[in-house]
Amino acid sequence: MNTILNPEQNTWNELTQRPTQSFQDIELTVSAIFKEIQQKGDKAVAKYTSIFDGITLENNQVTQQEITEAEQQLSDELKEAIQTAKKNIERFHAAQKTAKVAVETLPGINCWQEKKPISKVGLYIPGGSAPLFSTVLMLAAPAKLAGCQEIILCTPPNKEGKINPAILFAAQLCGITQIQKIGGIQAIAAMTFGTESVPKVYKIFGPGNQFVTVAKQVATQYGVAIDMPAGPSELLVVADETSNPAFIASDLLSQAEHGADSQVILVTTSQEVLKQTESEIEKQLAVLPRKTIAEQAIAQSRLIYFDSEQKALDFINEYAPEHFIIAAQNEEFYINGIQNAGSVFVGSYTPESAGDYTSGTNHTLPTNGYARNYSGVNLDSFLKAITFQKISPKGLQTIGNTIEIMAEAEGLQAHKNAVTIRLKTLENENI
Amino acid sequence: MNTILNPEQNTWNELTQRPTQSFQDIELTVSAIFKEIQQKGDKAVAKYTSIFDGITLENNQVTQQEITEAEQQLSDELKEAIQTAKKNIERFHAAQKTAKVAVETLPGINCWQEKKPISKVGLYIPGGSAPLFSTVLMLAAPAKLAGCQEIILCTPPNKEGKINPAILFAAQLCGITQIQKIGGIQAIAAMTFGTESVPKVYKIFGPGNQFVTVAKQVATQYGVAIDMPAGPSELLVVADETSNPAFIASDLLSQAEHGADSQVILVTTSQEVLKQTESEIEKQLAVLPRKTIAEQAIAQSRLIYFDSEQKALDFINEYAPEHFIIAAQNEEFYINGIQNAGSVFVGSYTPESAGDYTSGTNHTLPTNGYARNYSGVNLDSFLKAITFQKISPKGLQTIGNTIEIMAEAEGLQAHKNAVTIRLKTLENENI
Repeated sequence: MNTILNPEQNTWNELTQRPTQSFQDIELTVSAIFKEIQQKGDKAVAKYTSIFDGITLENNQVTQQEITEAEQQLSDELKEAIQTAKKNIERFHAAQKTAKVAVETLPGINCWQEKKPISKVGLYIPGGSAPLFSTVLMLAAPAKLAGCQEIILCTPPNKEGKINPAILFAAQLCGITQIQKIGGIQAIAAMTFGTESVPKVYKIFGPGNQFVTVAKQVATQYGVAIDMPAGPSELLVVADETSNPAFIASDLLSQAEHGADSQVILVTTSQEVLKQTESEIEKQLAVLPRKTIAEQAIAQSRLIYFDSEQKALDFINEYAPEHFIIAAQNEEFYINGIQNAGSVFVGSYTPESAGDYTSGTNHTLPTNGYARNYSGVNLDSFLKAITFQKISPKGLQTIGNTIEIMAEAEGLQAHKNAVTIRLKTLENENI
Repeated sequence: MNTILNPEQNTWNELTQRPTQSFQDIELTVSAIFKEIQQKGDKAVAKYTSIFDGITLENNQVTQQEITEAEQQLSDELKEAIQTAKKNIERFHAAQKTAKVAVETLPGINCWQEKKPISKVGLYIPGGSAPLFSTVLMLAAPAKLAGCQEIILCTPPNKEGKINPAILFAAQLCGITQIQKIGGIQAIAAMTFGTESVPKVYKIFGPGNQFVTVAKQVATQYGVAIDMPAGPSELLVVADETSNPAFIASDLLSQAEHGADSQVILVTTSQEVLKQTESEIEKQLAVLPRKTIAEQAIAQSRLIYFDSEQKALDFINEYAPEHFIIAAQNEEFYINGIQNAGSVFVGSYTPESAGDYTSGTNHTLPTNGYARNYSGVNLDSFLKAITFQKISPKGLQTIGNTIEIMAEAEGLQAHKNAVTIRLKTLENENI
């Protein structure tokens, strides 16, 4: 752990840096696999599933029977927990629905904006040590609410060619159209181009390792949109002398167990709480199953003391954390002042894991400082806004000359003509 | 002009293709200039301004005196037109403001979403033959409404080191923070990294030629967001036997004059209107000042007849036009059915140029089929959504077990601990 006391503002740039990731070597590999899948479709997908997942599959698509079996394998309490989480996520995301925006900007000039679903979306759920069925809920529930017609889920099979039953249960519950046993680069490429068995999609969502991250970036070169650029997960806790060091330590560790590259930061206006948190971390870390992973992240962590809340807030806004826990008493100060964050957890009884699973907010959030310019996944991520305008003959007579003057000044005569020809017609018809 | 009658659905994929653009040669040039500007700042900017714009500038920043002089050079009628357009754009974009979304997902679990401005944004306005002061309004007015603190505008100087006065007037009117005489790749790179005189921004907006397009893509590799991927502008008009061929021709030509690579498409259920439009285009084209440009676009244009409105609509949704004019009588059918379009113009008296300048809708729109997965620029483009949650002790007692079960099932023990430690504290305190 690195303790820093009252850092001067000219050191903040360095303190807000995330570990640099170089994707250039990977990009060549990714691009080559993309080209192969573009040309050879399912055959190439099968080849890479065999190489990367160590299994040869006859058929990538999960069958109804597999889904039914998965449901039988889960405990009732886990199924109930997943259902509770889904309901909360739906409640919060349904409330984000916006009404049609309609304005008569001038008499006879009616403008409106309507949102329409992105018809085909692809969701990627990583495999590996943690079966992220919670991410299935976070992506599929809003996609369904938004009205996306085709929702394709790709996730890698294990060595037996199976998918974790909780992932299948959550996917089925959310109304996923198709579940494909495809992982990594080959999954993103398959959804980008479409293959004989996987539909092409217009937007791809979901977390993943560095290969998936680069694959999503490469996908954007082929016309696919992505939810956001991804990086290692991160948490910043702000605390004062009233905060509970054991709670803070538990939150920092819940972030640290995600991966050795997780970012864990404590910002505090109390040197006492800083020291106590440090020793609490050591105590709690000792008994964690994922201790080895968490230890590495904690070794890189920063515990930063500031002598004023304003400086603390300024630093936090410069850092732009993915997850931001307000464990300080002065909650309103931080709530009102925060400008750059993915999701904010207010008060001592709001651990990050509440938002990770069940409070209702989305856990797919901007990392690596992207909270300065990106939203986390929300209902609008699955929609696009279309604008409309309808101008009456009277409306065009009111505004026509303004258009003609501006088009003329931009040297665009045909733009002007499109108005002039209509105004003349109205004049001839005595309207 | 290419006339196609009742194309079979298996030919639609080809018919909806845009001209392929290969950016790979350009990308090397762009990346090299980015690296130089990252290292050498203003000195490198000056070098490329000298190479590409043929002028050596002492100072890139536009002075207050230049702005005052610009205002004096413009006619009153143009200034008034610009002000009218700005007011309409403001009215429509102000109406897009969303209220805070707040939901108690379960008793004691309060979730809310608030939007905050992206604090630093960069706007790019191309130089060249058409001085796009209208684009200044389209980008700067919503940026100001959204509350962006720093709004930087870059636009290339002419050979005398000047900026078109209408661009300066519009920029001043909208409250741009800083206007820089920098164009092309060097402008995008300067705003990506920041230089001694140009601030680094978090999101870059605006149109440009292929160099600017690639530069914006490269900028995203350095943590900057962009409005959307850009391509040549495009218009699709749908018409039936009641439509006015002269109006349609004027609209298609207003699109065609943008550039030789502009996409111009007529979809119609009337072969008669198709033929009449064809001859109207020839008639109107002959007298256009930008005839040479428009002619090339028109040569590539497609006039497509369908024998049913449903087929026409399906094709239009597959094409996903940037601009879509409904010149057919059955307006409601197309309004309700359109799923993929940037901006829609309804009825015979709503030419595209109305939306380009003054109706109030934005003219920065998704091209190249991106209307399937991207919105045009709107108020939200300058904001990001942050979610918040606050859980009461009672709320955590209600939901805590659900979180514990899910965290355990994902194998994330520290996530579970963050809840368990709090529940135990509450138990010990008899709450």
